[in-house]
Amino acid sequence: MKQTVNSERLRHRFEIFNEIGATERGGVNRPSLSEANQEARDQLVKWFTDTGLDVAIDEMGNVFGRRDGTDDSLAPVLVGSHIDSQYNGGRFDGVVGVLGALEVTETLNDQGVDTKRPIEIVAWSNEEGVRFQPDMLGSGVFADIFDLDYARSREDKDGRTFGDELRRIGYDGERSCKPRDLHCYFELHVEQGPYLHEIGRSVSVVEGVYGFSWMNVVFEGSADHAGPTPMNLRYDALVATSDVVESVRRIAGTEGEDLVGTVGSLDVFPNSINVIPERVEFTIDFRSYDNDVVDAAVERVQREIEWAAEREGVDWEFEEIMRVDADPFADECIETVERAARAVVGEDDYIRLVSGAGHDANYLNTICPTSMIFVPSVDGISHVEEEYTEWEDIVAGVNVLYNAVLEKANE
Amino acid sequence: MKQTVNSERLRHRFEIFNEIGATERGGVNRPSLSEANQEARDQLVKWFTDTGLDVAIDEMGNVFGRRDGTDDSLAPVLVGSHIDSQYNGGRFDGVVGVLGALEVTETLNDQGVDTKRPIEIVAWSNEEGVRFQPDMLGSGVFADIFDLDYARSREDKDGRTFGDELRRIGYDGERSCKPRDLHCYFELHVEQGPYLHEIGRSVSVVEGVYGFSWMNVVFEGSADHAGPTPMNLRYDALVATSDVVESVRRIAGTEGEDLVGTVGSLDVFPNSINVIPERVEFTIDFRSYDNDVVDAAVERVQREIEWAAEREGVDWEFEEIMRVDADPFADECIETVERAARAVVGEDDYIRLVSGAGHDANYLNTICPTSMIFVPSVDGISHVEEEYTEWEDIVAGVNVLYNAVLEKANE
Repeated sequence: MKQTVNSERLRHRFEIFNEIGATERGGVNRPSLSEANQEARDQLVKWFTDTGLDVAIDEMGNVFGRRDGTDDSLAPVLVGSHIDSQYNGGRFDGVVGVLGALEVTETLNDQGVDTKRPIEIVAWSNEEGVRFQPDMLGSGVFADIFDLDYARSREDKDGRTFGDELRRIGYDGERSCKPRDLHCYFELHVEQGPYLHEIGRSVSVVEGVYGFSWMNVVFEGSADHAGPTPMNLRYDALVATSDVVESVRRIAGTEGEDLVGTVGSLDVFPNSINVIPERVEFTIDFRSYDNDVVDAAVERVQREIEWAAEREGVDWEFEEIMRVDADPFADECIETVERAARAVVGEDDYIRLVSGAGHDANYLNTICPTSMIFVPSVDGISHVEEEYTEWEDIVAGVNVLYNAVLEKANE
Repeated sequence: MKQTVNSERLRHRFEIFNEIGATERGGVNRPSLSEANQEARDQLVKWFTDTGLDVAIDEMGNVFGRRDGTDDSLAPVLVGSHIDSQYNGGRFDGVVGVLGALEVTETLNDQGVDTKRPIEIVAWSNEEGVRFQPDMLGSGVFADIFDLDYARSREDKDGRTFGDELRRIGYDGERSCKPRDLHCYFELHVEQGPYLHEIGRSVSVVEGVYGFSWMNVVFEGSADHAGPTPMNLRYDALVATSDVVESVRRIAGTEGEDLVGTVGSLDVFPNSINVIPERVEFTIDFRSYDNDVVDAAVERVQREIEWAAEREGVDWEFEEIMRVDADPFADECIETVERAARAVVGEDDYIRLVSGAGHDANYLNTICPTSMIFVPSVDGISHVEEEYTEWEDIVAGVNVLYNAVLEKANE
């Protein structure tokens, strides 16, 4: 690996940062706009200031740190991620991208390198969406996906609004949160899936993000007694559901090349050992980088639902509750990241892939050329305290980020 | 139908009785030892007394009403059922058997018929088991299946014991609750299954009760993100579970002649639309009148569980939590009921069947010759307010009971 950034300094900051909101089992608990999130923001602002970055906070509490270019009239290169966490989440999710970006500007400082364009680091507010829904609220307003008033009036489960909580922790900034002229956006993130770890590569060039469909399904049969009801007089909502769970697996294995399908949530009523399930409510999640494949999967599973209902003699309801198209990143940014990956880890240690999960980068991609860098999540585990990424993979990712930012900042 | 009992009087009592604890949607709410259960007991004791029966309450609150025979040294014919209900249960479950028994003795009074043996009516305590577990607690102690102290110390969810609650409602009787010499036991009950209604017969002679096995199964996989986790790197506890749900259906369709199989309860963790199910806990219920068939089904489903776990790469746990053998009733009582059914509704309107559900009669069958009479449950619906039995079927059942009791009471 061709290493440019200072691994020791990065690691030192990573450890200090993750003492904030640290949990006993090795994770962090820094949900959006919590005390721990405030403390983490304070630490970040201090480091931004200490290293000479100009700090600005916007109306959504997004934190920016700017390193001037030699021509400050040029649109900046934006690079960052998020520092809010899941409740009792992992130490890597988001943090790697923000501290990695800081290390990129520090390394430029160390080397006395000036770039033509300004470089801005950003920590987006409320990426996780565990306290305020929807997720990716800060980048969403910035990219004009969400209205500012809508976003600031989102309430947590105790009825406290995002705007009020932002004011309470002192991060209700003055800078307007809206699209502006950006040369490009890069985000380094842990994969949150098992693929890189499984194939043993250090980094990936992210070409885009899967589109997906979320569906709710209900089967309604008859809650008869499990003893005196012969098999031929049953209307069992769970048997019909099991047919569909199997067909989701079958569809994912036969439709397109990259389709994944999941039944993640399933509730049985009345849910009693000796009563035939009367009602089952469950969800289906289909994802692919090819929108036509998602279309085909949704169509196929609807037919499977109808057949399963007819076979079992139960009623069915089907609703597609969300549909998001696949989001290909900008070729020029993908190519920049690929050149950087090739330079840092070599041809055999990176791979191009498409992300199965959404990120702030999706929203940025609607207003400027964007790409991402993934580093492996051991066993694909994320959003829990056991989340882990090998340190050398993080260092590889930050070095790729450095090369990509440097290339674009000199265009 | 050869009608002997007084249908009008029976109906009048049925309507009055079911005003106690009546729910808005046409059911009754008289769980064990509730105020409504107390009121129902009071009404029953009043009717017993009014019609000349000697009332006795035992240590389990079982209510007895005795009509003397011409030779009171002979063992009595016992006949009854229960008057406690499910929470918001139906009007027929249990009540039909107790008020039917009362109507039998009333008809004997009307006709001035003396029987050789005494006839005793009984309303067993806590048949339903919704407030105090296990169910059939009153008949269980009476038949020496449960220890008296164990039964009286059973607690409801608020920590109140059966014994204390029995005292509170004034039904902590003095008579010892233990097996005694009985000539036989008969119980009239609604079927709680769809079979009689489906085939259009008015009554059935119950030959015995299915044996059953209750099992708990757990699959444990990995809670990965539904987006970035390729299908070949998934360890999905719900896919494994669906295999087993399907195989329970398949086993029930291919093992023995009468086997029924049900997955009634199923819980998914973490149960989120975009997370692959890590853990599923579910139950299996197999029932047959042939114990070997239950054995074979349990063995087959264990193999299916292992195969499903191996296919999906998940861990599994299996536990048989309850096993009850099939319980054939006494030939002499079955034959008595069959003669009565033939006399009342004729050859074409009754059928012999085996009960899929347990009743107080199961415990009585361990201490004296026993059989049951079923009348149809419309659409097999029971334990809910919509429970319904046609009045003419109830009258047919009570007439069958009358004939059976009369025959045995003169032996």
